[in-house]
This record gives sequence, structure tokens and C-alpha cells, in this order.
Amino acid sequence: MQSFEIDKSDLLRIKTALEGDDAGLEVVLQEYHASEIAILFEKLPQEAKERIINMLPADIASEVLSEMTEESHPEDLLLNMHPDKRSDIVEELDYDDATDIISQLEEHEQHEILQDIDQEDAHNIRALLKYDEDTAGGLMNSEIIKVNINLDKKEALDEIIRQSEEMEEFYTIYVVDDENVLQGILSIKSIIKARSDARVSDLVDKNFIYVKAELDQEDVAGLISQYNLTTIPVVDDNMKLLGRVTVDDIIDVMEQESTEDILKISGVSEDEELSGNWKEAVKSRLPWLVINLGTAYLAASIIRHFDSTVSQLPQIAAYMTIIAGMGGNAATQSLAVTVRRISLSDLSDAQAYNTVLKEFLVGLLNGAANGLIVFAIAMFYDADPLLGLVLFLAMTGNLVIAGLTGASIPLVLKRVGIDPAVASSIIITTFTDCAGFLLPLWLASKFLLHS
Amino acid sequence: MQSFEIDKSDLLRIKTALEGDDAGLEVVLQEYHASEIAILFEKLPQEAKERIINMLPADIASEVLSEMTEESHPEDLLLNMHPDKRSDIVEELDYDDATDIISQLEEHEQHEILQDIDQEDAHNIRALLKYDEDTAGGLMNSEIIKVNINLDKKEALDEIIRQSEEMEEFYTIYVVDDENVLQGILSIKSIIKARSDARVSDLVDKNFIYVKAELDQEDVAGLISQYNLTTIPVVDDNMKLLGRVTVDDIIDVMEQESTEDILKISGVSEDEELSGNWKEAVKSRLPWLVINLGTAYLAASIIRHFDSTVSQLPQIAAYMTIIAGMGGNAATQSLAVTVRRISLSDLSDAQAYNTVLKEFLVGLLNGAANGLIVFAIAMFYDADPLLGLVLFLAMTGNLVIAGLTGASIPLVLKRVGIDPAVASSIIITTFTDCAGFLLPLWLASKFLLHS
Repeated sequence: MQSFEIDKSDLLRIKTALEGDDAGLEVVLQEYHASEIAILFEKLPQEAKERIINMLPADIASEVLSEMTEESHPEDLLLNMHPDKRSDIVEELDYDDATDIISQLEEHEQHEILQDIDQEDAHNIRALLKYDEDTAGGLMNSEIIKVNINLDKKEALDEIIRQSEEMEEFYTIYVVDDENVLQGILSIKSIIKARSDARVSDLVDKNFIYVKAELDQEDVAGLISQYNLTTIPVVDDNMKLLGRVTVDDIIDVMEQESTEDILKISGVSEDEELSGNWKEAVKSRLPWLVINLGTAYLAASIIRHFDSTVSQLPQIAAYMTIIAGMGGNAATQSLAVTVRRISLSDLSDAQAYNTVLKEFLVGLLNGAANGLIVFAIAMFYDADPLLGLVLFLAMTGNLVIAGLTGASIPLVLKRVGIDPAVASSIIITTFTDCAGFLLPLWLASKFLLHS
Repeated sequence: MQSFEIDKSDLLRIKTALEGDDAGLEVVLQEYHASEIAILFEKLPQEAKERIINMLPADIASEVLSEMTEESHPEDLLLNMHPDKRSDIVEELDYDDATDIISQLEEHEQHEILQDIDQEDAHNIRALLKYDEDTAGGLMNSEIIKVNINLDKKEALDEIIRQSEEMEEFYTIYVVDDENVLQGILSIKSIIKARSDARVSDLVDKNFIYVKAELDQEDVAGLISQYNLTTIPVVDDNMKLLGRVTVDDIIDVMEQESTEDILKISGVSEDEELSGNWKEAVKSRLPWLVINLGTAYLAASIIRHFDSTVSQLPQIAAYMTIIAGMGGNAATQSLAVTVRRISLSDLSDAQAYNTVLKEFLVGLLNGAANGLIVFAIAMFYDADPLLGLVLFLAMTGNLVIAGLTGASIPLVLKRVGIDPAVASSIIITTFTDCAGFLLPLWLASKFLLHS
């Protein structure tokens, strides 16, 4: 098996099979991996998904549900299923995946599902449901392998094999004391290689990294990425072992965080679902547009102040839109580089200063370069060197302002604790719009009008 | 040890220690993990970094180099080091990390470094240097554990323990035949649990996912994320096992890809280094600004066409900037949602159609809402219902155009094979600028001027 991409032929095969009987559909489905069926589900209507999930064996169906994106709403499929089938599937799910799916439901629906399943499973899922889904506790899986620090090699190995029966894969063995307080980690390599009279206490690595259950998922992702970990143990306030977060959970977090970054920087609420309907989209975006309308009026009020300049020199109306627009573009560039840089690491004071200085220089140079082009065009079309000079100065000035604000506003917002991705662009566009209108209009009123 | 953040006190301690002698500095350094030193390096001058890296033991120094970001240029530290120390460090590095660092150097510098180190290491690194760094071959590590399919349990376990001596961590054991052709994978669990007379051929899992060395790193990341893998084997065209890519390499790829996405969508070349100097920044951004200047002139030429309208009705100059600006904002929102959606999964024709329809509706509703506000303000300030109506229609029309182009342009670009993140925003802004000027000016010239 190599790389898999859903193409039209796959979709067509499934759709054709859906028109036939269950036996035929089953044969076609057997050719797909659970994660592939989850992708196909994104393109299928609700009835088709319900029919397929009910047909699949519980172990495959549970894998499909856990692979579906949050936006495809696996919880709806679970809810509309026959209760017996549903219990089988929930019991097959990893606790963290079950919790993620069930947490999307209403409380009485959660209760209905959990009361029908194995009591130990229900207990574990209920414990996980307590944690906010964006924290280490919400991400973690409580299916772990742990051994008591007082065991010897043979006892520990037997225990590891026994516990691993129920797990698909394990990366790390955790060592706890009699009170379930985390003592360290044990590598499978070290226990296999150990002499037969070795004890866990000789082999345990006490120098390990852990997180508290309340830690935000972004910070968990940061630690896993920084220390190149495959898993990280999650503990409560008394250092008791609750579970572990694995690197594959973190990949989903990172994908989600970078979607949020891109949306926020573009003025879309981070809660808007990419495949959401138009009502959600209006609700998510209209407030932002109305705020922008306010700042647009602020910038436009500058133009109104120069009504007589515009009236006498109507071509300045065209040129000022060019200068304001170019300021916005240059500011977006400075902003993107600075916001991304901040989000990857904190900047020292000296680095922050250098960043602003660099963006000032870049603004000056790019402003002068574009200013020269605008000057040349004004000479060619309007044959007016004074107009050309006004436009050159306005363009250079606005691109300097774009560079300065594009770099400094996100740095300042970050220091005062406001998310720079959300608030920066509107503040900066307001600056470049206002300056983009004010500079050419004011310079024109000074130098070009013969009043 | 829990979460680590570099704060000013850490930096101050290091800086103070740097002013003292080596012994004191060494004591301070011992308190930091290699990945923490790599982060501190981002804030230190070149001389300080060189002094520290030369002082650290080779195993720690190699970890620091491998943890440094590409933008901190670990290859410069390596180059300026005493050759003996350098050889020790390169031999300590994982082959894939050594390759990443050395590949940044000139060919004669690479040769100089490689001729001094262990011949087997040099051979392996040279083999990896052949692959483009953005492919599976460029990402992979050739330090793997592999066993021959003809071994029995005892032989295999001995072989695994022998090979794992040199490795920090292993997740998967690969099974090959006498020709090094990949046959499958073997889980450590299955071999520990197997009966003593079992053979590797009984235990091997032949249903595995692999990639060819030439596959692009983004596709490798997609597979690892889709199938929740910790590692994926890399093979040549004859299915011979070359190495493996691990999930922690993929985390770096994902971080890099989302930086590139954010930069591209903002009109910055994806090659611009976030901490690069002003010369690189000008080179990366000026071409984009000049293209934007061209489209700004296109939009402005519409305004010039209405010089007499502007002259007679100067307030329209202010209003048209509001309508054009709001169109740009709304289009950016539609664009961000659509671009991100496309980059996470391919859309079917029906989904593409629904996306455009949704954005049309959102544009209509948000346009009408903002149009009403603009209408109300025009009534209040200008007491002119006809002007209010012109502005209402222009605002609604431009936000509809924003929604339609914001959704359809990236979809079309994607289908014709152009990266939608790069080219969409300029095309869309041109549409919303042109329509944002044309609609109010044309409507005003029709309904508001008494010519």
C-alpha cells in the first residue's frame, strides 16, 4: 500500500455500490483503510454515511469515527445508531477519541450513551470529559502501560506484556510508586537488555518531562516539538499519573492552530468551521466587517476634510487610492513576517528593536522604488514634476509607516497580552489608509493648488 | 523538569557567565537541556555561540546543532570550529541532521568536513546529500533497526538489541530479505510475546505503508498524519530499504509549511527567512509590490474615467474608498476560509459549487447589513436618500463580488495547477478595488449628477 488520494473514481465506485445491495457495498468497502473511509465520508450525504457505518464491523467503524474531522460531526453518526451497535463501537474507541466525540453531544445524550457501555470504560470516559478539550487533560489518553517501581525485571516484563495486550502500540513505559505517583520512565530497550536480577528502580529514568492536566494544548505541542518527544505523561496536582499525550494527537493540534492563525489574520473568527453554513459565516465575519467600516469612515473623514482639494484636482482621488492600497500591501507583508516570527519564538528587546529597524529600512527602500515608478508615470501622463514629487514623497512616507506599524504593532500587542494575529491587521490598515489619504492630499493642497 | 520558557533571567545569567571564565560558564550551561541552549542561541551574538559550542562535550554540542533552526545557521558554527572537534560532533549527529546542516554549505566545504570523519559515516551522509531536502529522501534517517526475514526469535531479538545499542529510540523494526528488499514490519510487542520457536517470517506484518525517496515532504507529512504513523519506511525504486522518516521530523515540516502558507497569502516570498536581513526582505517583497502597483493603476484608471463626477461630487471620493476597502476585507475573509479548506482536503465539484454559493450568500447578507449602515450615515450626515441608495447598492454589490471571487478564484487556480495561496489575493483585490470604485462612481454619475 502506498500513498492514497481520494479521486473521482473512488467516489464513483462507492456511490455506485451505495445504489446496490449491502453485500456488494461490503465488498467495495473492504478495499479501503478506515482513514480512507473517513475521507470519503466528507463527500457523502448523511444517509449514506449512516448506512455504511452501521454495516462496518465495530473495530473498523470505531476507527472511521476517530479519523473523521470534528467538522464532519462523527457524534451525529454515533447518536443515530442502534444502541447495541453504538455500545460496541464506543467500547472499541480509545478513551481520548471517545471523549472527543462524545463531548460534542448534549449532556443527556452523553449520559444515554455512557450508561449502556462497560462500566470501567464509562468511568474512564467520564473522567476525561471533565477536562477542557483544549488542554493536556482533554488531549490525553488514559490507556498507558505503567509498572510499579518495586518490581524486578521478570515481573515488570510480564506486566508490560499483559498490559500491552489491549493496546495497539506503546512508546513509553511509565513507572509509578504504590500511590500512582509518577517516578519516571522506563525504556523497552533498557528492560530487554537488563540483567535478569535488575529491578525497575535500577532502570528507571528519573529525568523526564511531564505536563499538568490543565496545560493548554498549544504549550503541550510546543514541549513535544521542542524536546522531540513521542509521548508526554500527564499528571494531576499531586503528580499522580493520569495519562499521556502522544505525538499524533499533537499533529492534529498543530493543523488546527495554523488554521486558526490564518483565519484570525484574515479577520475570520477562529471558531468558524471551514465547512460551516452561511449563517455561521455571517455571524463569524459581520462583527469584524462592522469594526472595519468604522475605521474606514475614520480614514474617509480625512478625505472629506480635503473636499475642495479633490474638487479642484480630481486626479488626486485616483492617486491617493494607489498610495493607500500600496501601504496596506506593504504593511501586510511586514505584519505576516513579524506575527509568524513572534508565534514561533519570543523576541528579546534587542531583537524587537532590530525587527522594527529592519522593517523601517525595507519600507524606505520599497517606498522609494515604488515612489520612483509613480513619479515617472506622473511625468509621462500628467507631465507634472511637482505632482510627481508629491506622489513620490507620499508613497515613500506611507511605506515607511507601513513597515514601522507592521512590525511594531504586533510586538506591542504581544507584550500587553493581546493576540497579535487578531488585532494587528485592523490597526495597521487604519494607519496606512489614513496616512495614504492624508499624505497625498495634504502635500497636494500645499504644493499643487494655486489658491 | 517541566515546561521551559526562555525568559530574561536565563538570558541574563548566560550573558553574565559569558563575561566570566570558562569554568563558571560551564557550570551555568550544565543546567540547560541542549534544546534550551539552541533557543538561547537565537538571542546570542556569533562569538558567544562559537565559544559555547566549542566548550560543550561533543554529544551535547551535536544535539544543540540539530535543534537549532535553519535560520540560526548551525552550519556556520560547524565551519568555524577546530577540525578535530568538528569531526567528533559530526560523528555524533544523526545522519539526517548531519545532512541537513552540511547541505547548507558549499561543495568544497562539505568535502572538507566529510573527509575528516569516519568513512562509514561519511558514506552514509554523502548518500543522503543526493536527495532534495524537501523529499522523503532528504528527511529520512538511515539509522534503522532491520532484521532478516529468515531469522528465528532468538536471533532476531539478539540482532535488535545489538542494533539498538547505537540508537536513542526506536519505534519500528523493519524486516528485509537477503537483497535488502523491504518485506514488512515487526512490532517489538509481537516478538517479545512470540513463542520461542517462532520465526520472523511468522511475525512480520506485510500490510504496511511506505514511501519512495523522491516523494515530496508535504505528502509524507500527509500520510503520517492520515494514518497516525510514528515512522514510515523510505524505499528506492526497487523497494530496497533506504531509511525511515519519523514523526518528529514531520512536526518541523508542518511548522515550516504553515509559515510558508501565511507568508504566501500575505504577498511575501516563501523563501524569505523570518529573521533575514533587510536586503533579503526587499528582494523578496519588492516584486510583489510592483505587481500590486500595476493592478492599483488599473483600478485607479477607473477613477480617472470619472474625473468630472469626482470634481462635481467630491464626497464620492471618500465613500468609494470605504466601499473598495470593505470589499477587500470581505474578500480576504472568503479567501482565507477557502484557501485553508482546499489545503486540508480536495473538494468535489458539488462541494466547490456549494462553497461558491455559500460565499455569495454571505456576501449578499454582509453587504446588505453594511449597506444599511452606510445608508443610515448618508441620511444623517448628507441628508440625501439618493446618495444613501447609491452607497447601499454599491456596498452590497461589492461584497457579493468579494464573496464570489474570494471563493471561486482559489478553486479555479487550484484546478489549473497554480498555488492558490500565492496568486489569489492579488487577483481578488483587483476585482474588489475595480468594482469598489466603479460601482459608486457609475451609480453616482447616473443618479446623482444633474448634467
